[in-house]
Amino acid sequence: MKEIRIGMIGTGYIGRAHAIAYAQASTVFPLKGTLVREMIAEVTPELAQTRAQEMGFNRSTDDWRKLVADPNIDVVDICSPNFLHKEMAMEAIKHGKHVYCEKPLALNSHDAKEMVAAAEKAGVKTLVGFNYMKNPTAQLAKEIIENGEIGEVIHFYGTHNEDYMADPTAPIHWHCFKEKAGLGALGDLSAHIINMAQYLVGDIETVCGDMEIVIKERPEKAGSSVMVAVENEDQAHAMVRFAGGAMGVIETSRIASGRKMGLTYVVTGTKGTLSFTQERMAELKLYRHDEPSNRQGFKTILVGPEHPDYAPFCGGAGHGIGFNDQKTVEVRDLIDGVATGKALWPDFEEGWKVSRILDAIARSYEEQRWVKVKEIN
Amino acid sequence: MKEIRIGMIGTGYIGRAHAIAYAQASTVFPLKGTLVREMIAEVTPELAQTRAQEMGFNRSTDDWRKLVADPNIDVVDICSPNFLHKEMAMEAIKHGKHVYCEKPLALNSHDAKEMVAAAEKAGVKTLVGFNYMKNPTAQLAKEIIENGEIGEVIHFYGTHNEDYMADPTAPIHWHCFKEKAGLGALGDLSAHIINMAQYLVGDIETVCGDMEIVIKERPEKAGSSVMVAVENEDQAHAMVRFAGGAMGVIETSRIASGRKMGLTYVVTGTKGTLSFTQERMAELKLYRHDEPSNRQGFKTILVGPEHPDYAPFCGGAGHGIGFNDQKTVEVRDLIDGVATGKALWPDFEEGWKVSRILDAIARSYEEQRWVKVKEIN
Amino acid sequence: MKEIRIGMIGTGYIGRAHAIAYAQASTVFPLKGTLVREMIAEVTPELAQTRAQEMGFNRSTDDWRKLVADPNIDVVDICSPNFLHKEMAMEAIKHGKHVYCEKPLALNSHDAKEMVAAAEKAGVKTLVGFNYMKNPTAQLAKEIIENGEIGEVIHFYGTHNEDYMADPTAPIHWHCFKEKAGLGALGDLSAHIINMAQYLVGDIETVCGDMEIVIKERPEKAGSSVMVAVENEDQAHAMVRFAGGAMGVIETSRIASGRKMGLTYVVTGTKGTLSFTQERMAELKLYRHDEPSNRQGFKTILVGPEHPDYAPFCGGAGHGIGFNDQKTVEVRDLIDGVATGKALWPDFEEGWKVSRILDAIARSYEEQRWVKVKEIN
Amino acid sequence: MKEIRIGMIGTGYIGRAHAIAYAQASTVFPLKGTLVREMIAEVTPELAQTRAQEMGFNRSTDDWRKLVADPNIDVVDICSPNFLHKEMAMEAIKHGKHVYCEKPLALNSHDAKEMVAAAEKAGVKTLVGFNYMKNPTAQLAKEIIENGEIGEVIHFYGTHNEDYMADPTAPIHWHCFKEKAGLGALGDLSAHIINMAQYLVGDIETVCGDMEIVIKERPEKAGSSVMVAVENEDQAHAMVRFAGGAMGVIETSRIASGRKMGLTYVVTGTKGTLSFTQERMAELKLYRHDEPSNRQGFKTILVGPEHPDYAPFCGGAGHGIGFNDQKTVEVRDLIDGVATGKALWPDFEEGWKVSRILDAIARSYEEQRWVKVKEIN
Repeated sequence: MKEIRIGMIGTGYIGRAHAIAYAQASTVFPLKGTLVREMIAEVTPELAQTRAQEMGFNRSTDDWRKLVADPNIDVVDICSPNFLHKEMAMEAIKHGKHVYCEKPLALNSHDAKEMVAAAEKAGVKTLVGFNYMKNPTAQLAKEIIENGEIGEVIHFYGTHNEDYMADPTAPIHWHCFKEKAGLGALGDLSAHIINMAQYLVGDIETVCGDMEIVIKERPEKAGSSVMVAVENEDQAHAMVRFAGGAMGVIETSRIASGRKMGLTYVVTGTKGTLSFTQERMAELKLYRHDEPSNRQGFKTILVGPEHPDYAPFCGGAGHGIGFNDQKTVEVRDLIDGVATGKALWPDFEEGWKVSRILDAIARSYEEQRWVKVKEIN
Repeated sequence: MKEIRIGMIGTGYIGRAHAIAYAQASTVFPLKGTLVREMIAEVTPELAQTRAQEMGFNRSTDDWRKLVADPNIDVVDICSPNFLHKEMAMEAIKHGKHVYCEKPLALNSHDAKEMVAAAEKAGVKTLVGFNYMKNPTAQLAKEIIENGEIGEVIHFYGTHNEDYMADPTAPIHWHCFKEKAGLGALGDLSAHIINMAQYLVGDIETVCGDMEIVIKERPEKAGSSVMVAVENEDQAHAMVRFAGGAMGVIETSRIASGRKMGLTYVVTGTKGTLSFTQERMAELKLYRHDEPSNRQGFKTILVGPEHPDYAPFCGGAGHGIGFNDQKTVEVRDLIDGVATGKALWPDFEEGWKVSRILDAIARSYEEQRWVKVKEIN
Repeated sequence: MKEIRIGMIGTGYIGRAHAIAYAQASTVFPLKGTLVREMIAEVTPELAQTRAQEMGFNRSTDDWRKLVADPNIDVVDICSPNFLHKEMAMEAIKHGKHVYCEKPLALNSHDAKEMVAAAEKAGVKTLVGFNYMKNPTAQLAKEIIENGEIGEVIHFYGTHNEDYMADPTAPIHWHCFKEKAGLGALGDLSAHIINMAQYLVGDIETVCGDMEIVIKERPEKAGSSVMVAVENEDQAHAMVRFAGGAMGVIETSRIASGRKMGLTYVVTGTKGTLSFTQERMAELKLYRHDEPSNRQGFKTILVGPEHPDYAPFCGGAGHGIGFNDQKTVEVRDLIDGVATGKALWPDFEEGWKVSRILDAIARSYEEQRWVKVKEIN
Repeated sequence: MKEIRIGMIGTGYIGRAHAIAYAQASTVFPLKGTLVREMIAEVTPELAQTRAQEMGFNRSTDDWRKLVADPNIDVVDICSPNFLHKEMAMEAIKHGKHVYCEKPLALNSHDAKEMVAAAEKAGVKTLVGFNYMKNPTAQLAKEIIENGEIGEVIHFYGTHNEDYMADPTAPIHWHCFKEKAGLGALGDLSAHIINMAQYLVGDIETVCGDMEIVIKERPEKAGSSVMVAVENEDQAHAMVRFAGGAMGVIETSRIASGRKMGLTYVVTGTKGTLSFTQERMAELKLYRHDEPSNRQGFKTILVGPEHPDYAPFCGGAGHGIGFNDQKTVEVRDLIDGVATGKALWPDFEEGWKVSRILDAIARSYEEQRWVKVKEIN
């Protein structure tokens, strides 16, 4: 089998998840290529070496430019802070590497579009790490919708709420600066639920949004009395319309007390409804109104071996899948796609579409009006 | 004690709830006036008499004008279809009666405003039947918010979704015609959640809404092949801003498969969050982020005798309150208010405010822009 | 219609529930007799009079013997403490009255049996106030089981856990003394779940139980340092076998922290399972394994107008029924049964059966062995 | 670091979970030894080789005796059917290997005891694969109990119910034969919840059980009309008493329709209660009655980085852990224990204790009496 050699840049929060997924992927799935954990890039040689050892990679470097140029790397995996995504991806593409990049693809849709164009021109494969639509439960939701089991979708309500910045005394963070993060909760969190909406219901065409910086300033460091201005929104929401006509609402917040992994959706169709919360990531609730009228109700389906991509993890339904298992499905898609030439999704084009929707929401807020996603270049 | 003599017009769906509340109110609560079930008006003398007998009223009539003019009536209770509310209320006020009217107060805010003015001029008391904010659980939510237990409210998400029209073969109904019902799901359902939002978070100042008639036409009668156009929205949602600055989303639908009594709210504050669904009307979920960080979580509070207006129904927490019990609290407020002169809430002014918000959402949709509630006369 | 005149003894916790049910019953249901709230007996003339007025009864007395002998009383309703049930019921029967008695019927099965015999001999109707099996949701469970929708019942797990005595500093109470209460949690609480088990699955034939007085002594009064011994069990559980062969477990406790109305059951059949908790009294969960294997799950059915005895309360599913509504169904059964001669259930015979099971559990614990219910006289 | 070389026997359902855990363990945790996936034994050389390749093991064999005798193996990991556990473990111990064995340790406690003695004599380390108490959520429960946060434990209700044999047409399986499996649901499933009970509450001292073969015979093969007798129980339950005095109930079934991973527990203490279901493996519900009386309720704690053994998997609370993650914690314990000499738990002694409790329940059923666990040799 063909070797697919991974070079990973960044080993923080999400880098760990990638590393765990790489570690288990070939044991879980019968991959179509041989996954090789080749090289890690981190900010110092020591950290890079330590992480490579911990994470089972062959080599390490403190210079990501070396990594992207290395002839023995097939896929560059970008797990760095948002503001570095574009530069790294463009450089990797220049060297003809396939690119697996964390979301959001770039700080704005303009940048994202350049990345799409570059990847297309170079003929490399791309994948964006949206995680949650790789969950077997999300795949089951997709299957149910595509089968027409809930009829035609007429409404989508989706959230990605967390509370990691809810404490007003929590210090400022690169996520709070436009230059480093672009948008706030919209970019960091809602990218996921917008991707999910597009996956389940199709393209979003028009948006009308609202947002707020609730906590205007934060301590420079923990305990510091020096306050620094927060530059992007803590919370936002938007009304949307899908190409298929369905109405939708998207909500996001990084200060939503009590929501730890508050990616949720309710998809209402003409024949039934699906409901999901990522905090109970192995359950999907399904209601169908064609059941006998006195026996109707939301049914809690526990994902199991009869559903997509679950059996390789576990032979028993309801036994549970975890956060990193989603990443493992994503890595399976990556390896199989690169090995066989099969299309990857969500690719940079989808990443760009999500960025465009985010920018459309932001513009809609600034101009206090409905905005067509196509208005955003 | 002073007698408070009730004359009730209409004995359909909601009229039954009123009648049950009247029947039990004086046993449940130590009322400050003597509730007398005096007269019922219905469309035929036979039906009026039958209902009066079933519901324990002394007299009956097929002419509501006689009822509102009867000198032995103190309170006129209007449970008729929406399009009759205004005429009946105005006539009752003309005769100096206090008026207890079902929601929506009128077909539009203009009419509602006339009703407010008439009632004020006549010096009569008014009450609108919004039901759900009389629930002990809603009162507990209000208490928690007012105590500052969740800090300052920064976000409100509220729905009133049901599925009573979800079946596209269900025949047309007066609710579907503008002349009889005014708005569709907005008027029939969202009035409740808007009232709840105003109760919990305060006045809504600006709105931006979207809506859709999903099922364009319906059979004239069950099984008929003659199709009649549906004139008002099946589903709608809106972004709102409260006077206090909080952002909000309101959703409503009459075709939301699986939602039977889908009045729900999530109130996010700077220190915590409340979550509620009317389908589990005796539970309130509360999260506070000032608890020890490794023992935080949403707490499910079952309402009980230590919470507002529960003990008179039952001495045991978690034993359960029902739909009609909310109406009984409402009737208690009515009788006590009329007997003692204490202000009633939600009164016609609040009913008008809700109507104005509904009209603002509708205009916002028509003009595809944010609308200030004050723009609506 | 025939008048059914009620004489109620005792107006405490459960007496209030009876009074509320009487107040609303004829408005909710088309009763087959005319319910008359005739007389109340309480411990002082003042209290009796006050309660009669509050609860809408015509007359009052401080001598329950006068009430049971009164010629204008048809039904004696016994809401007094447990140790008085027998004497009052026997006296009422002696005067030819129908008897509606709260659970447990008596302090032991021997006494209960005498009451059954007396009622039979006198030809009067009897009803025991078990509340919870009158819940529309319980009736739906019964319907599902009887239809064979979950196949043959093979296992029953039932609890009635509460925490009203969980605080060890809560003062002693008549419920803690054998002479006044007989058994502890078994008598006060598990009587309900045993009745429910018999209703849903049929007669219990053999039992093997365990129990414990966890809090050995309690203050004489709130705040007192004088401690008094608790004489009966705080918690108990038992394995049971039903006549039909099903295995079962019954649990009960009055010190089960957090359980406010912890009557719950899981009924497992050869084709499916039902699950219920009274704290969500309007929901029933149903699983059927004959559904497509990738769409199976517990379905949450919200009771509504298509289910037994719900529509008279409310025309909308999921709108909610409360504790007192169960009592209203019970009162409907009482009035209709007395008016038409139709059999009542659960009658004194069922009350005796429950007492016999309770005594069998107690004996089983004392003798540390399985006991046949029939061993108890 | 010291190499810890694993030889794994069997690669079926649970073997896969082991393999996945081995694959990710060193990436997730900073292990104290170097985990080497050395050799796999399977029933044919081809299968062994295929599995070794898929699961990242260096070598393979079709002769488990070679594996246990191999000088380059430090730990023998037994994932074979139950009836082979003893022979393989004894042979491994004879060769001085540490042994990691799946539950149940043996077909009966007598065999288990011999295994304990042999391991002790040989001075090798042992670990039994009970999975679920390695869940961070279970560890949190343990921490809460040990801290005294729910006071003294007074009651334990635990289940391990599944429905993998609920379909009566499902063919016979080795689990149904005494010679291959020993007990039925008790051995296969309840071993887990008994281990959990011992982990959370301490040793079980006395038991009284009941059980039933509900489906008496099954098809020899799928679709066959030849029926074969089922030899062991489909469902069972038992009352237990813990050494500390707490009462308990244990339930188990392999035909409990709808329960997919029905390991659940409710631990009631004098000051609060814990409640858990493995189907929502990342949530723990906690009730404490020392909170303000009008703000009490069960709190749903989502496990996160502040709880035991979670952060290495994911930096975000509520993001979810899966079935195999528990095994990864188990493998971490194994490697660290073998590398450092730290005691492992649950070891063979605990495995034997669980077997003894199972045998005591079986004897209790046969003799229809309470049995002291110590009675079992």
